[in-house]
Amino acid sequence: MSRAPDTWILTADCPSVLGTVDAVTRYLFEQGCYVTEHHSFDDRLSSRFFIRVEFRQPDGFDEASFRAGLAERGESFGMIFELTPPNYRPKVVIMVSKADHCLNDLLYRQRINQLSMDVVAVISNHPDLEPLARWHDIPYYHFPLDPNDKPAQEARVMKVIEDTGAELVVLARYMQVLSPELCRKLDGKAINIHHSLLPGFKGAKPYHQAYNKGVKLVGATAHYINNDLDEGPIIAQGVEAVDHSHYPEDLIAKGRDIEGLTLARAVGYHIERRVFLNANRTVVL
Amino acid sequence: MSRAPDTWILTADCPSVLGTVDAVTRYLFEQGCYVTEHHSFDDRLSSRFFIRVEFRQPDGFDEASFRAGLAERGESFGMIFELTPPNYRPKVVIMVSKADHCLNDLLYRQRINQLSMDVVAVISNHPDLEPLARWHDIPYYHFPLDPNDKPAQEARVMKVIEDTGAELVVLARYMQVLSPELCRKLDGKAINIHHSLLPGFKGAKPYHQAYNKGVKLVGATAHYINNDLDEGPIIAQGVEAVDHSHYPEDLIAKGRDIEGLTLARAVGYHIERRVFLNANRTVVL
Amino acid sequence: MSRAPDTWILTADCPSVLGTVDAVTRYLFEQGCYVTEHHSFDDRLSSRFFIRVEFRQPDGFDEASFRAGLAERGESFGMIFELTPPNYRPKVVIMVSKADHCLNDLLYRQRINQLSMDVVAVISNHPDLEPLARWHDIPYYHFPLDPNDKPAQEARVMKVIEDTGAELVVLARYMQVLSPELCRKLDGKAINIHHSLLPGFKGAKPYHQAYNKGVKLVGATAHYINNDLDEGPIIAQGVEAVDHSHYPEDLIAKGRDIEGLTLARAVGYHIERRVFLNANRTVVL
Amino acid sequence: MSRAPDTWILTADCPSVLGTVDAVTRYLFEQGCYVTEHHSFDDRLSSRFFIRVEFRQPDGFDEASFRAGLAERGESFGMIFELTPPNYRPKVVIMVSKADHCLNDLLYRQRINQLSMDVVAVISNHPDLEPLARWHDIPYYHFPLDPNDKPAQEARVMKVIEDTGAELVVLARYMQVLSPELCRKLDGKAINIHHSLLPGFKGAKPYHQAYNKGVKLVGATAHYINNDLDEGPIIAQGVEAVDHSHYPEDLIAKGRDIEGLTLARAVGYHIERRVFLNANRTVVL
Repeated sequence: MSRAPDTWILTADCPSVLGTVDAVTRYLFEQGCYVTEHHSFDDRLSSRFFIRVEFRQPDGFDEASFRAGLAERGESFGMIFELTPPNYRPKVVIMVSKADHCLNDLLYRQRINQLSMDVVAVISNHPDLEPLARWHDIPYYHFPLDPNDKPAQEARVMKVIEDTGAELVVLARYMQVLSPELCRKLDGKAINIHHSLLPGFKGAKPYHQAYNKGVKLVGATAHYINNDLDEGPIIAQGVEAVDHSHYPEDLIAKGRDIEGLTLARAVGYHIERRVFLNANRTVVL
Repeated sequence: MSRAPDTWILTADCPSVLGTVDAVTRYLFEQGCYVTEHHSFDDRLSSRFFIRVEFRQPDGFDEASFRAGLAERGESFGMIFELTPPNYRPKVVIMVSKADHCLNDLLYRQRINQLSMDVVAVISNHPDLEPLARWHDIPYYHFPLDPNDKPAQEARVMKVIEDTGAELVVLARYMQVLSPELCRKLDGKAINIHHSLLPGFKGAKPYHQAYNKGVKLVGATAHYINNDLDEGPIIAQGVEAVDHSHYPEDLIAKGRDIEGLTLARAVGYHIERRVFLNANRTVVL
Repeated sequence: MSRAPDTWILTADCPSVLGTVDAVTRYLFEQGCYVTEHHSFDDRLSSRFFIRVEFRQPDGFDEASFRAGLAERGESFGMIFELTPPNYRPKVVIMVSKADHCLNDLLYRQRINQLSMDVVAVISNHPDLEPLARWHDIPYYHFPLDPNDKPAQEARVMKVIEDTGAELVVLARYMQVLSPELCRKLDGKAINIHHSLLPGFKGAKPYHQAYNKGVKLVGATAHYINNDLDEGPIIAQGVEAVDHSHYPEDLIAKGRDIEGLTLARAVGYHIERRVFLNANRTVVL
Repeated sequence: MSRAPDTWILTADCPSVLGTVDAVTRYLFEQGCYVTEHHSFDDRLSSRFFIRVEFRQPDGFDEASFRAGLAERGESFGMIFELTPPNYRPKVVIMVSKADHCLNDLLYRQRINQLSMDVVAVISNHPDLEPLARWHDIPYYHFPLDPNDKPAQEARVMKVIEDTGAELVVLARYMQVLSPELCRKLDGKAINIHHSLLPGFKGAKPYHQAYNKGVKLVGATAHYINNDLDEGPIIAQGVEAVDHSHYPEDLIAKGRDIEGLTLARAVGYHIERRVFLNANRTVVL
């Protein structure tokens, strides 16, 4: 999975029916668009169709009229399109608490352009990671949590998300449970990293749980949040072998690499428009 | 982890206390035994010591007197010793139902001597796998399950285990729940392969559960059985990546390789005396 | 990667040019074929297009007229098509010497239908593996090698391949160098498993070479044969971690699992029409 | 592999002979040292013995007299000892060119104390990475390379290493060939990361070489340098799967994670005194 820098991305999904692929590919051909990679999948259990195409535009390509024609063509199929220009960089808000391994990793990947995104804000309930954000010239918002007034803090969070126009929120080890209301607002727009192979070891202190069970593998799960913080659709999972000599603190240390890699992978898939929601599962093309 | 063919294996464990390592290594030296590999681990949470040594015997080595001296030396430490001669091949009973991928794999590894064991019987509640066992010249016992008289069937199973003198029972996809009584008899002497990354997806149809959760990794867990069939101490776990295009039947197919490899690994560790029980966890040296 | 049992597979490749995707997908739509999975890739370095589509046929589907129409449509693109019916089982000849781990693995996967193929012959320069082939009811040809008359032996091999109508030859640890002439005849039609991560450790005794270099990973490479036996286009590679305690014979034992899995994976890709030749590389869709 | 923070590490190696293990363990016992982990290995091909012990000191432990007694005990065996106190942090010099992924990773791990080391200097032939070093409060030395006077530059490098008292030099993608003279001085004291699975793809542009061969796996090798920059004893190797859609620049991007992880692993092994040289191979206990 790799993406050429000069290509548009077209993604769509709709109910399964004859002609979905043709509707998209014929339109692209008629518009003179050169397809470089095409992947579609028709889920026979959920009867839903998913397509992702990368293409190069022809001379004189007009985005507005392309979109209009596409909408018309897909209407009878109930297709929901998304069109992403070359070099598009989504705005991203990252939320953290005190642990910085995921933040450090994401900012590094942004800096070397391995993740083509603009991190527009880092929000935390603690002040600790401000220097790291500042070094990357990213505004840092310290919104402490008043246990008696969580709604007020979440309102400040939501205001930053809205003011910056961020399309994605990344919970990079933000160790707080979001309210159902905030979860609903961020449904499908926020990626969380959970430090276990969900659905095993949900909840608090998963590495301690893992130690107590004597597992020989630990892992991490990146998923969209929905109503239930640890139950949203899974995007990516990573794993590493451990043994009896790993005490809980060793599992935590071991887990850092997996968490960082797994979260970065999921964010990359999202940014490259590879992830589709399919009820409580994802399709990654 | 590999073992030389001409070495004895000495294993022991006892409560943590000063002098445990020296008690073993000094005795070996005094007896003229040449140590080729030595691994010990002192668990600071359970305060228990574990040691595994491979050694070559001196000329004129007398096993009986060696054992007697060792027992004396370890007595004050409460050490439980196990001494395994070169080329020792434990007797093993394998239990199966209808799926033969694990059985096929285990018998193959026995045949090429990658697993140094003697499979003395294959027991099944179905007749299907008899030809495979017969081709390897291994007696096959078809003990159908009468739902109204499970104790009778288990008594027949237990009789074969006892008559053959098997020291290890391998549940190679034996799709039946053992009675608590049989579990107790086989405590620490039977290895089961469960087709999920325990403790996730316990119980029936784990691959269907995994599909419904949309996981991106499936795996298998080899563990000793104890009272709770899916909760015994874990010996080995294996994992493989999957994606949205894997329907439940594809996960099952994908799982076969992992199940076979993970079970073979666990059986190998057991045979090479690498596995120690440490409450509900294992130490694998 | 998984395939539904009721689908046709259509594959094609041709030089890169506008309209390749549309040529295929429009035709499928016009013929009423329901596309369940579609993957295409346009290689911008070699300027070549590759497509693989799985589809379900409509009522009254006529294969002959479908093929004819397709040929017409693809002609101006220089497309080379391949159309594979549901439940098609290619005929396969397996060549071995004395080691049976790959043969055992392939025959097992055929038996449980994980590899949908018909092994029509096993050919060897040694008699050792005849019982294994016989047990699977597969004819075994023992063609010993006379060092002074290799062409005669290869002629016998080629005759079996032709007489059985095999479309694929699998060199499952056939420890002989094929003559350039035979290589040429089998170009793109024969898969070999080499027991190293090619291009490292080409030639004889790769595990001994690996030991001498003190590598921490060993692997295997499945590739099509071409003029140079160890240099053909790579289809799949597998790897496993090793350490200082693995002597050459341990690396060999460790390698067996990787060789079997990697070869089975490559054969599966070939059978499911996922592999395209792209000069000295492969595209696997 | 994990290390308790309050333990000493004792390592030693010598020719294989009866009594090596006992010489060490008996002395530890007599001194009242509590062994928490012990691993020894006797290489039957090179006839050399290696041992690594972690232990807790008794009350009133005197390092000087402990060392003196140990030296006496090991003398007849020709043992070379190394004794490392709890919380010892070796001084490390890191050398880089322009790519910063390995440097970023190492400094991050130092900062969170996952690697217990003190990076005392970063040396580069380019000025680019100074801000990153400065942010971690580490002196940065920009020593440009005059192609006509390489010895002068290397003398400056060597002076920093000597002045800082660094015991380890890490070549974290330092894209220059060291002179044989410098290699000799750093023999066994410098770890290099090579961006391929050595011995495959030695030399320049390994990812382009890998692309041209169409490999399905890319990897990285961390090794001690010796006379030949790409041929020193291997400490660790990492690997990741790739496919046809990865162009050379994608392989390079993919490689960054593996390079960083593999180098960090090797540096960690070195710091924890796990690595022993065994001719041109390593033993990692």
